[in-house]
Amino acid sequence: MNEYSSKLLETAVHELARLPGIGKKTALRMALHILSEEAAYATNLGNAVMRMREEIVFCKKCNNISDTEECAICANPKRDENTLCVVEDTRDVLAIENTAQFNGLYHVLGGIINPIEGIGPNDIHVRHLIERVNTEEINEVILALPATVEGDTTNFYIYKLLKPFEVSITTIARGVAVGNELEFTDEITLGRSILNRLPFDDFAK
Amino acid sequence: MNEYSSKLLETAVHELARLPGIGKKTALRMALHILSEEAAYATNLGNAVMRMREEIVFCKKCNNISDTEECAICANPKRDENTLCVVEDTRDVLAIENTAQFNGLYHVLGGIINPIEGIGPNDIHVRHLIERVNTEEINEVILALPATVEGDTTNFYIYKLLKPFEVSITTIARGVAVGNELEFTDEITLGRSILNRLPFDDFAK
Repeated sequence: MNEYSSKLLETAVHELARLPGIGKKTALRMALHILSEEAAYATNLGNAVMRMREEIVFCKKCNNISDTEECAICANPKRDENTLCVVEDTRDVLAIENTAQFNGLYHVLGGIINPIEGIGPNDIHVRHLIERVNTEEINEVILALPATVEGDTTNFYIYKLLKPFEVSITTIARGVAVGNELEFTDEITLGRSILNRLPFDDFAK
Repeated sequence: MNEYSSKLLETAVHELARLPGIGKKTALRMALHILSEEAAYATNLGNAVMRMREEIVFCKKCNNISDTEECAICANPKRDENTLCVVEDTRDVLAIENTAQFNGLYHVLGGIINPIEGIGPNDIHVRHLIERVNTEEINEVILALPATVEGDTTNFYIYKLLKPFEVSITTIARGVAVGNELEFTDEITLGRSILNRLPFDDFAK
């Protein structure tokens, strides 16, 4: 006898359980929820997932995911096209957009260099970045990669490639998070925040 | 400007975030995971959800969800059709099936009496249960509802309706969970497990 009384339920649970962080029990709870909702919800959910996968493209300029050849950010004439922010993936674009502190353009690498997972410089959009710096009028490249060993490796790799160009290369500030106590901040972060201390004038701006 | 660079992504995140226990951030993580997988996964997931919602039916005998008019458990000639286990929903059927300790048939109520949420006796399959006891050859009805006030209310309601019939009515044992320490068991459970103590002969069986 099958574990589930319904093959249709079993298939749906199996597919839902392939989503990240979702186990069999949560998938079953989701499937029963979908069954208890009106039929339109299952149709909307199913179609949204399939249409997204079929129709989404990568922006030809910045590699961000987009509905059109050029994404809404790249196509926006109000954005400062002389400043480029280099990020790992779309989630980082969303996170930075939510701060409302950046008005330039992005360059999405689609990953970072990670030898353990077999991701080398040719597996991410680095060459495309160099091309952009070479052909577009870019004054500043902001490296906004994760504060990890892999992020630092990628930062350094890109830094070396961009050095010959007349472009200022910056990286986002690392230090004590706003609202955090010093005693609970790890030593490396605290150490760096002392080394990279700012004139209070800059801070108060 | 839109929060997401893609309307297709936004729609998928919106629909995924309607699943129970899934917030916007998890939904975004799921959507990006679906985008990174091969196209077949999105198609399989979408179709599985839609087909399940469209084609699943409720077993005409026990109200369990099923692919056919009569579910696999009711249709199985090896099951003991004289014993009926009354449960709240499909998840409970799965949980009991997984114990491999029950070989009878089920009756799925589809809910329990809950005045606060406006669920009365006519909103769940109680009348259908009485009909079954009246027409089928049932010797024992096992009440396996949640050990909550609502479960107890429903138990008592069903008990009163079934009393006139020649059928033995039992309920699943409540007591200290296997593997638990006495000192961490709540007083009501511990109290009941003393009141409902068993001859050690029964226990050792």
